[in-house]
Amino acid sequence: MMDMPKSECVALLENSVVGRLGMVGPDGKPYTIPLKFVWFDQAVYVRAAYDGRKQDAIAHARQVCFETDEVDDNFSHYASVIIEGTLVDIHSETEKRTALVALNEKYTRLAGLPSPGPNPATQGVAIRKILVEKLSGRKSEPDPASVRRRPMSTWHDELVAYGREHQG
Amino acid sequence: MMDMPKSECVALLENSVVGRLGMVGPDGKPYTIPLKFVWFDQAVYVRAAYDGRKQDAIAHARQVCFETDEVDDNFSHYASVIIEGTLVDIHSETEKRTALVALNEKYTRLAGLPSPGPNPATQGVAIRKILVEKLSGRKSEPDPASVRRRPMSTWHDELVAYGREHQG
Repeated sequence: MMDMPKSECVALLENSVVGRLGMVGPDGKPYTIPLKFVWFDQAVYVRAAYDGRKQDAIAHARQVCFETDEVDDNFSHYASVIIEGTLVDIHSETEKRTALVALNEKYTRLAGLPSPGPNPATQGVAIRKILVEKLSGRKSEPDPASVRRRPMSTWHDELVAYGREHQG
Repeated sequence: MMDMPKSECVALLENSVVGRLGMVGPDGKPYTIPLKFVWFDQAVYVRAAYDGRKQDAIAHARQVCFETDEVDDNFSHYASVIIEGTLVDIHSETEKRTALVALNEKYTRLAGLPSPGPNPATQGVAIRKILVEKLSGRKSEPDPASVRRRPMSTWHDELVAYGREHQG
């Protein structure tokens, strides 16, 4: 295993399917859950409801440890990224919509489906982001291309542009 | 999403490739890392070195939260298991060898490679297990077969028999 440069960590974040959110509960015990996520505008955005045990843990401590990884079918290539940071709620309707568009675009792209468009329903949707304090990655092989499930598209640049247009 | 019965949780544990070990560090912050694992004899066995930040976290608190999940290629089926429990070091050479055989068998089976045999090198290998206190699973579809990367083999029964023969 070797360290991955930032560019390869970002490639993995843009293409990996599931993330895991590590939290600490009010009882001081670790609590780790899987969830969808999108890497957007230098942060990890997740859709996470405001209830249950997850909410209890988040209310207890905003410091989280996020992990994602990909392995190819014959296990010859493996890569993972760990992000430590602070989880914050998104209250801005604009940022919420932009993040939701990015989230929807990511998963339709990875599934090879047509884009769902830039007008998702945001009412009642809880979006949070992890403000990155530390980002690191490890891989078993020098070629990060193998961890990509799908070829990179231009969706990210498009969405960054969309986000800029609709911000503020 | 719906709860999974224990049998489906076990099927996922036997066939999923990567697990994530959620810990709490000496600073009270969550720390989550990916690692290989094997579900064997009602516990999660991992190979984890006795050094670095992982060791610091384990030395701080033995309570861990283990997570694994699988998603199929078009994201139509998804399943995850979360195990909370206590991480203990394995000192018995017999248990260490049995666990290491199970670990090797699992990954060669998943990769479609021939069995590596029952005599792995154990010197200097750190094996730990998570004693399960709570096990739960969630899935997006009623059919657990879709989360299996490979058809089930008889390796588990064989290994349990091997473990019984070589124990004590």
